[in-house]
Amino acid sequence: MRAAIFRNGQIVVDHLPEPKPGAGQVLVKSLACGICGSDLHARQHAYRMADLAKHTGRQPMDLSRDIVFGHEFCCEVLDHGPATERKLEPGTRVCSIPALITAEGPRGIGYSNDHVGAYAERMLLSEALLLEVPNGLAAEHAALTEPLAVGVHAVAKANIRGDEVPLVIGCGPVGLAVIAALKIKGIGPIIAADYSPKRRALAERLGADVVVDPAKSQPYQTWAEHAQMTSEQKAARPPFQAWLPALKPALIFECVGIPGLIQQVFEGAPRDARIVVVGVCMETDRSEPMLGILKELNVQYVLGYTPEEYAWSLRLIAEGQVDAASLVTGQIGIDGVAQAFADLANPEQHTKIIVEPWR
Amino acid sequence: MRAAIFRNGQIVVDHLPEPKPGAGQVLVKSLACGICGSDLHARQHAYRMADLAKHTGRQPMDLSRDIVFGHEFCCEVLDHGPATERKLEPGTRVCSIPALITAEGPRGIGYSNDHVGAYAERMLLSEALLLEVPNGLAAEHAALTEPLAVGVHAVAKANIRGDEVPLVIGCGPVGLAVIAALKIKGIGPIIAADYSPKRRALAERLGADVVVDPAKSQPYQTWAEHAQMTSEQKAARPPFQAWLPALKPALIFECVGIPGLIQQVFEGAPRDARIVVVGVCMETDRSEPMLGILKELNVQYVLGYTPEEYAWSLRLIAEGQVDAASLVTGQIGIDGVAQAFADLANPEQHTKIIVEPWR
Repeated sequence: MRAAIFRNGQIVVDHLPEPKPGAGQVLVKSLACGICGSDLHARQHAYRMADLAKHTGRQPMDLSRDIVFGHEFCCEVLDHGPATERKLEPGTRVCSIPALITAEGPRGIGYSNDHVGAYAERMLLSEALLLEVPNGLAAEHAALTEPLAVGVHAVAKANIRGDEVPLVIGCGPVGLAVIAALKIKGIGPIIAADYSPKRRALAERLGADVVVDPAKSQPYQTWAEHAQMTSEQKAARPPFQAWLPALKPALIFECVGIPGLIQQVFEGAPRDARIVVVGVCMETDRSEPMLGILKELNVQYVLGYTPEEYAWSLRLIAEGQVDAASLVTGQIGIDGVAQAFADLANPEQHTKIIVEPWR
Repeated sequence: MRAAIFRNGQIVVDHLPEPKPGAGQVLVKSLACGICGSDLHARQHAYRMADLAKHTGRQPMDLSRDIVFGHEFCCEVLDHGPATERKLEPGTRVCSIPALITAEGPRGIGYSNDHVGAYAERMLLSEALLLEVPNGLAAEHAALTEPLAVGVHAVAKANIRGDEVPLVIGCGPVGLAVIAALKIKGIGPIIAADYSPKRRALAERLGADVVVDPAKSQPYQTWAEHAQMTSEQKAARPPFQAWLPALKPALIFECVGIPGLIQQVFEGAPRDARIVVVGVCMETDRSEPMLGILKELNVQYVLGYTPEEYAWSLRLIAEGQVDAASLVTGQIGIDGVAQAFADLANPEQHTKIIVEPWR
């Protein structure tokens, strides 16, 4: 079969052997797979990624061998392996968290030497993890389940009490997913910042109440304007807090993931802010712990989602509660993947490019 | 009056004008004042401290003018200013959070050009903030209220649920206060790590159940040995977590405050650990956000305490619930402050040196 392969630091197209489903596994056709920012990061920082995996008990990638990315997918059932229940017939469209249950335990799909991701024509999934795509949802929209789940998880990990005013820094696919998840939770007003007009328009479409161009105004200033306490809230504060600025709790989502961003958030954040780091920064970063201390900041790093959050995200898209379609800005075949990695650098041109390996 | 003054980057002894109590203020005699690690940091990193204050709306210190440190104090009432209720007679021993209520709002005591700390013979306090020292508690032990409150606050900010196993990194006065506060909360077993045998002995005295010499064994390994889930806890895990190591939640207190420590904690911490940063690192630090992300770590930076936490800490010492006396390793006069700053570098020799300006 054909696949877009990460080989020697580049994306190349080549043939790979057909995958053979093991016990409990299903052979599927990749219908649609989003290109994730993490794939771009992984191509650029593959050695660091492999190195860091050691600290976390994860299986590090062997960069001397082929890897097929692609973990935001919607597939079609082709064939069942041994020891399967076969409840979903061939032709059924399915989604799954990007994990494969093997005899050695669960293994990731998409950043693995052994389990190809959905930039290949065919791949293996675990029958036990399959979710049937509901409501005749198009495959390219069902493929957005995974990035939406990242936002849903980030919001879940924020331990929201209900009185927070959120600020989303960066409106790429991750920031947009966070905005959608906040909107569904009914938390607001949602303030969102991005330099790109296209991304700010998308942020509004997905639920941002106020958008900020950081080139024109300070996001934290705009946030503060929309986070003033009510007079009841002011009166309810303990006496020793009465001299502090009367602001509602800040909940800041860092959705950019480049070095320096966390320090920037530390500088701009108000006292007692909670910061959820959703952007994946793969480089060593520098920051002033003293700023965190003086402001008593809380930083929650997040990654991935639970199977329940993933399943809920698929329903949110299928029920039209999240306008996933608006994120898709390009659909390409296997031969277009390398160019798409470059094209994604321009936020005015692209938000989410979908790989359709059957094209 | 005489005072140990921070002037041109050094601690010098000189005379200063007598303070005059304003409205609501009380003139007090400094009986005893602990030398805090933050004072040592402030002397070394004064310019950075002043610079960082700008980001947090605090009044920055003017380093061209005199500053008198000393914020861990017990005092004796001497005289009342105008508009005071005079409930506490001259001669009464009092503690207070190191803040002065002025016409311009509350102002810090001890890192200020205008309000001298307790390394001076006399100083001003706000009558409304005074707490009478109970139970005939000695002044040098009442002075430990402030550092204990730092530990009490750090534990309060950790949002303890009850099933965590704490690991305290660093058993200086801050780490010891955290250990005491954890013990009072009944959280354990408490694992504590320090290179110094003296400090490890103190950690045990204040409530640590297991102490680790990081030169001999890995603190995170020791922690894991004491944090194994019970079989009930293992069985209660959601299925998608069943493949993770069966460890109780980790609650790590970083009580060292030097560059590189947070990265070290990031490397050693287990998945989902909560890290409370109590150590005050005043330098720029480097860390790998990716480690935080892969492990979904939470970092809570903390500073200070509430007036309630401070008052409770005084009661804990007065009631003998915390063995504060064991921390005091030296008592000096104003002329000994400069030497004491140097002596505190040796953890075998000193834990807490008390300045008694009347000596």
